[in-house]
Amino acid sequence: MSTFAPDGLGRLAINQATIPRWTAEEAIVGCARAGYGAIGLWRDRVAECGAGRAASLARSEGIAISSLCRGGWFLGSGAAEERHERMRENFRAVDEAAELGAATLVLVSGPAPTKDLEAGRREVRDAIAELAGYAAPAGVSLAIEPMHPMYCGDRSVVVTLAQALEVASSIGGDVVGVMIDSYHLWWDPALEAAIAAAGGRILGLQLADWIAPPPDPLNGRGMLGDGTIDLRHFKALVDATGYVGPIEIEVFNPAVWQIDPEETLRTVAARYATLVV
Amino acid sequence: MSTFAPDGLGRLAINQATIPRWTAEEAIVGCARAGYGAIGLWRDRVAECGAGRAASLARSEGIAISSLCRGGWFLGSGAAEERHERMRENFRAVDEAAELGAATLVLVSGPAPTKDLEAGRREVRDAIAELAGYAAPAGVSLAIEPMHPMYCGDRSVVVTLAQALEVASSIGGDVVGVMIDSYHLWWDPALEAAIAAAGGRILGLQLADWIAPPPDPLNGRGMLGDGTIDLRHFKALVDATGYVGPIEIEVFNPAVWQIDPEETLRTVAARYATLVV
Repeated sequence: MSTFAPDGLGRLAINQATIPRWTAEEAIVGCARAGYGAIGLWRDRVAECGAGRAASLARSEGIAISSLCRGGWFLGSGAAEERHERMRENFRAVDEAAELGAATLVLVSGPAPTKDLEAGRREVRDAIAELAGYAAPAGVSLAIEPMHPMYCGDRSVVVTLAQALEVASSIGGDVVGVMIDSYHLWWDPALEAAIAAAGGRILGLQLADWIAPPPDPLNGRGMLGDGTIDLRHFKALVDATGYVGPIEIEVFNPAVWQIDPEETLRTVAARYATLVV
Repeated sequence: MSTFAPDGLGRLAINQATIPRWTAEEAIVGCARAGYGAIGLWRDRVAECGAGRAASLARSEGIAISSLCRGGWFLGSGAAEERHERMRENFRAVDEAAELGAATLVLVSGPAPTKDLEAGRREVRDAIAELAGYAAPAGVSLAIEPMHPMYCGDRSVVVTLAQALEVASSIGGDVVGVMIDSYHLWWDPALEAAIAAAGGRILGLQLADWIAPPPDPLNGRGMLGDGTIDLRHFKALVDATGYVGPIEIEVFNPAVWQIDPEETLRTVAARYATLVV
């Protein structure tokens, strides 16, 4: 472990989207050597070296793969053939997660094809149930990620943790659970009850801060400590359910992306040590 | 009624923020002559002519004042003197609403002074209870406006209709209710139940569409029909509670503001007739 990595980083993970200047191979090696316990990867970046190569490199470097981003985007225009192709693409994502040995495949539900939001939500639920049937024999778990309501029109009809849990529970079994992300969920007046109810179905915890007002709807997430979220409290709520898995820092922000990845890893570790644990 | 105003506009109202090129006096006259049943006004624009003048003009033109925007912003930095000044400012807003004969004073809660969001929410609730004690003898009702969770960090700790209703119910009496705005609430998976539960406490209905992704966090609201919301369904949910009050169109959008207000009123009336009623 390098000298700049504080102790107690065992659960700390980085999502590759925070350090896009590195390839998947560079990120795996760089994060392992910075003392991180795990890394969340993205399919397009894994494709550059291949899932097999990424998996073997992670094993040799002694770093876990906390998540693969991402499956989902189930509905598209609503045409049957397009939906089938989207499901086939999700099957490929499951295959890649299995080859990587990723702890979970993250699902971003996608928008509704029409203005009938509740119909879209039912269709997303059915698609996740279908995907679960493919993921179970592959040994891959599926983490439904409720996204901030700001994304309800274009990225995810699943917007609250209670809603994601209802979908997971309705499918049953132990393949489908939830990804909890502070950026997406911090505003929810029902958050504490929802997190408590999620115990046993939490497949991952992601942290980013909320900058107010958001400088960009998509890439305006804040480095830990730069925003309005009580991250220590948020993490404590999740810990209280018994979750002991990785804590993945995922910051979509062009200002962060300009920084040398090694420096970002040092900043994240320092902020994590003082603001989260 | 002018020839361009479709029939059935009796409940249609415009919020002055949609047509800021007009003064309050111009807006009152222009909306009345376009066949609108009511207008929502803003304090800073009312101040230009005085509440008494606006009230008498609205009476003589035969148009109701559906709302006054706005009170709220209760907490500030958390310093006691600042809070007292903010409450005095809210008392002045109540006085103006009474002088105008506005159907309700809209409350935007404001952000929390610290990262303890739940503490901020309790303090906002207590401030609204205090304000209700001033508003009751003045005959002014207070409409808590839950705002989109996108604003939780800088504009409103009240972000869901269920939460606004809980605040109103905890205060009791009939002074405090809710403002329902499609732009702020459309994403909520619990919306139908919350609207049904709001029956009797709905003090106003505002409509704007949601553009995805939002072109601007503050001024990116969509003209009716330009976005993702099923406005007819939304309005029907509110009607089903027994609400028969004004339906106020409020579109914060620089592209709309560039248009001649008379043309905007025609567009709103036409969209309303085809997409809402």
